[in-house]
Amino acid sequence: MNFSSKLIEQAVEAFATLPGIGRKTALRLTLHLVSRQAEDTEQLAQAVLNMRRNIRHCSICHNLSDEPICSICADKRRDRSLVCIVEGIRDVMAIEDTEQYRGLYHVLGGLINPLEGVGPGDLAIDSLLHRVAAGEIKEIILAISPTIEGDTTMFYITKKLKDTGVKVSSIARGVSFGGELEYADELTLGRSIVARLPYTLNSE
Amino acid sequence: MNFSSKLIEQAVEAFATLPGIGRKTALRLTLHLVSRQAEDTEQLAQAVLNMRRNIRHCSICHNLSDEPICSICADKRRDRSLVCIVEGIRDVMAIEDTEQYRGLYHVLGGLINPLEGVGPGDLAIDSLLHRVAAGEIKEIILAISPTIEGDTTMFYITKKLKDTGVKVSSIARGVSFGGELEYADELTLGRSIVARLPYTLNSE
Repeated sequence: MNFSSKLIEQAVEAFATLPGIGRKTALRLTLHLVSRQAEDTEQLAQAVLNMRRNIRHCSICHNLSDEPICSICADKRRDRSLVCIVEGIRDVMAIEDTEQYRGLYHVLGGLINPLEGVGPGDLAIDSLLHRVAAGEIKEIILAISPTIEGDTTMFYITKKLKDTGVKVSSIARGVSFGGELEYADELTLGRSIVARLPYTLNSE
Repeated sequence: MNFSSKLIEQAVEAFATLPGIGRKTALRLTLHLVSRQAEDTEQLAQAVLNMRRNIRHCSICHNLSDEPICSICADKRRDRSLVCIVEGIRDVMAIEDTEQYRGLYHVLGGLINPLEGVGPGDLAIDSLLHRVAAGEIKEIILAISPTIEGDTTMFYITKKLKDTGVKVSSIARGVSFGGELEYADELTLGRSIVARLPYTLNSE
């Protein structure tokens, strides 16, 4: 691309460092900002800078947080005996969106992945064991994707928790609600037959 | 989306004001910035702010520029008797990328579009007539998309230039180089037969 302006070029290069944004999209974003009031750009930059400068990890669950302790961990109405283990903040948001869970979380910050050099020491697993050792937690729910990395991580955590007396469960897997049987993948459908549940009329 | 952090939410909302960026993509961008060094975010914000605060329009051709007169208009080696009229900076960049044009530009900043309330007075047409009146320009090349708005704009400019004695031309239209005839649209193919050119062996 032949930019006649260095300022435009630098803004385009900066936007293009973001994931999924190529130089054409970056140019579109830059020209959009030029076409709008300067205050809009100031607000965008301020929101992003303010976020990056002040965001921190909750000292209890390691979720991203504005305060030293996140709003979920600080919420006195939540069930402190139940902790759901997830990979990242997106999973917390997805579960919170369901409005079906009133316990706390523990955000690992990734999954064990030897190929990319991520070992248990790089994840928030030690701090999970400390939380469990404090005695308030009765049940741990593993809400981790069933990939190779996810299975390895679940196996590692389950092993570490074996002698603590804490109950370990995993989120249910099966054919999704509203899903057509014929379109379910073989593995899910096969497992959902093997792991069938008693059917009751008021089941929900 | 259920954000547990106000800072994240504000950054996501700010990114989501950009064209083509929904809230899911905005969240991805925000979390990407969190996962990287704080300096990267500072650099991104600085490049964008610096661009928006200092960008201006060239006082001659109205292209976006870092200086009062853009690098193309300031280039003494370019042919000042030839001016190419385009809609926006993207068109300037596309033509510059071809390295086939050594004249100057005139950026209209849009096209006449009565439905969206854009009249000739909103475009840089008066300043074009002033440039022509100054006497240095011998030929005007219309490099404008052949849409309804483009045709209206070309018609208006051509009419305004009728009595100035300046030659008005338009970029060539026809089947693209390397394009297969069977895939060319009917209008383009039909016109390219009507407006056929003499074929010479050293034609380029």
